[in-house]
Formats: sequence, C-alpha cells, structure tokens
Amino acid sequence: MKKIYILLAEGFELIEALAPYDVFCRGGINVKSVSTTGDKTVSASNGVKVLSDQLISQTDFSDADVIYLPGGYPGYTNLAKNSEVGKIVKNQYESGKFVAAICGAPTVLKANRLAIGKTVTAHSSCAAEMKTEYNYTGKNIERDLNLLTAIGAGHSVNFAIEIAKIVAGDQAVEKIKKGMEL
Amino acid sequence: MKKIYILLAEGFELIEALAPYDVFCRGGINVKSVSTTGDKTVSASNGVKVLSDQLISQTDFSDADVIYLPGGYPGYTNLAKNSEVGKIVKNQYESGKFVAAICGAPTVLKANRLAIGKTVTAHSSCAAEMKTEYNYTGKNIERDLNLLTAIGAGHSVNFAIEIAKIVAGDQAVEKIKKGMEL
Repeated sequence: MKKIYILLAEGFELIEALAPYDVFCRGGINVKSVSTTGDKTVSASNGVKVLSDQLISQTDFSDADVIYLPGGYPGYTNLAKNSEVGKIVKNQYESGKFVAAICGAPTVLKANRLAIGKTVTAHSSCAAEMKTEYNYTGKNIERDLNLLTAIGAGHSVNFAIEIAKIVAGDQAVEKIKKGMEL
Repeated sequence: MKKIYILLAEGFELIEALAPYDVFCRGGINVKSVSTTGDKTVSASNGVKVLSDQLISQTDFSDADVIYLPGGYPGYTNLAKNSEVGKIVKNQYESGKFVAAICGAPTVLKANRLAIGKTVTAHSSCAAEMKTEYNYTGKNIERDLNLLTAIGAGHSVNFAIEIAKIVAGDQAVEKIKKGMEL
C-alpha cells in the first residue's frame, strides 16, 4: 500500500490539506496527517481545528512514497522555518522520492535550497520569490521528475488526483473519480 | 454579514463539509460548523476528527442565510434520522430561506417530507431513492428556488462558489476565485 504524509503547520490551508487527504483515502492510499508542532491538534488558516494522526517527532518517514506540503498563511511560512521539516523534505527529495507542494508551500523548497533551477508552479503571490531560483511557469500543476507542485487551493482535488495517478495508478484514479462523481 | 451553518454528523464527508467552509470564509461569509451530536469533535467518514465551532443545542439558527448539509456515509444517514436536524431544516426551508445539500444529503429532505416534487440532484447511488418523489436530474448542481443541491464531493468547491454567489454576490466570488487561483 502506498503511503503519503501530509505535513500540518499552524495556519495550514484547509482545502489544500484535507481535500487531498480525502482523495488519497478514496484511492486506497495509506495517508497520514502529521503535526509539525508539538500538539496533535492543528489550526487551519481559517481557524478550523483538526486532529492530526500523529506528531512529527513520532514519525519515521522512510516509507513515504510522497511527502505533501499544503500552503495557507502562515502555514507555509511555518513549514519553511521548521528545521525538522526541512531535513525530512531534503531527505525525501534527495532520495529521488516524491515531494508535493501547493500554493505557498513551494517556497519551503527554496528555504531549504532544494531543487534549485527546477520547473515549478506556486501561488501567484509567490511568483516573484520563486522566479529568482526556479523555472516558475504559473501553470495549475507542474511535474519535474520527483517534484510535484500546484498553484493554489482551487486545484487541490486535481493535484491530489494527479499524485494518486502517479503513485497508485489509473485504477485508483477511476475509483476516486467514481465516488466523487467526477 | 451573511451567515451559513454547516451541520456535521458522525461520518460526514470531509471535502463536502470543509471545502465549502473554506470557500465561504474566503467570501467574507460568517460560517459556523455545528455538531449535531453532543460532542464538539466530530469524525469524518475517513476518520479525520474535526473540532466544530458549536453544538446544535447551543445554536439559534434564526439568522441562517443558508443551512448546508454535507454528505458522506454514514454522515447523511445520521443527519436524516436526527429529529432536531429535521426540525431545523424544515423551519429553514419553509421560511423560504436556503437549504443546500450535497451527495447523499438530499435524502435528508426526503426523510423529513420536504420539498417533495422539486427539482434536485444527488449522488448517483441515491438516484433511485430520490426519483420516487423528486424530479431528479443527475446534474452537477441544481437550484429550485431556495433549494440547492449538488451531486458529489468532486463538485464541492463549485457548489460552494455557487452558494456564495447567491447569498454574497459577484464581488465575494471574485475574491474567492482570486485567492484560490481559479
């Protein structure tokens, strides 16, 4: 069974974190939300409190097929300045395994000097920041080898379906789409 | 400020409840999630635990512009058999105010003998059940006066945007779409 970890920081974007959680579950993927704080309960940027599955300190990411970073303000800036998150994302990316980031979260790569020069997308408000060291396209979804990026919350479901397709295949996607009436 | 209540029962569909929560917040709408159980923490159908804003027993729905019912199994069946939910939805609908229901949740109307004969959509798995007493179309989104329905999780964001447009207008929708990169 494929495994995806969704990293939650205080101020994460609700749709960007939980729509993919739902989509991955529907695709038969083992998905875990991981609090990057010391508390299992994490607040979204709009104030909704969600109980994560586990704490970062209790998580061994070695079985991760994908590490998924939601955006949301100040969620993505909290991910970017968390050195533990940086280590985990760096290890995942440099092992050739998938890192996915949406909205403001591609800036977490930059903060950790990862994937410099690669082709990415990100929220338009981060375009100038990303363009200095990445090939920023502004497309809805981008893939550059094991780096998957998306532009923003409105594309969360499609991004999650694309990720599910890559790691779990067409049959998983069919199941997801059927249940969601897509 | 417009007000929307999202009713959460055990086993609610995560995207169908929380994507609209997020969209409504972005549109400057006062949105509250209401637990229909005695506990503020409610579990989604995929196991994610969410802290609702308030309990149904503590909520006065008289200022509701919209009462929104998410689907998800067994969430929608729990809504359908909750007599308190039935009273609230009946009062809202019969006052000519908006009731919105997605996926399996249009069956909550049937369980309460509401809006019989009206034009609705709902998840295809509920089509046969709905067709006996409603004009079931199977479209992604339907509106029949103050009754708004949607077919399933994959249309949660579009449904929420449509609801925001009706209650909060085009300017709210522009703000939502811009932030979400739609």
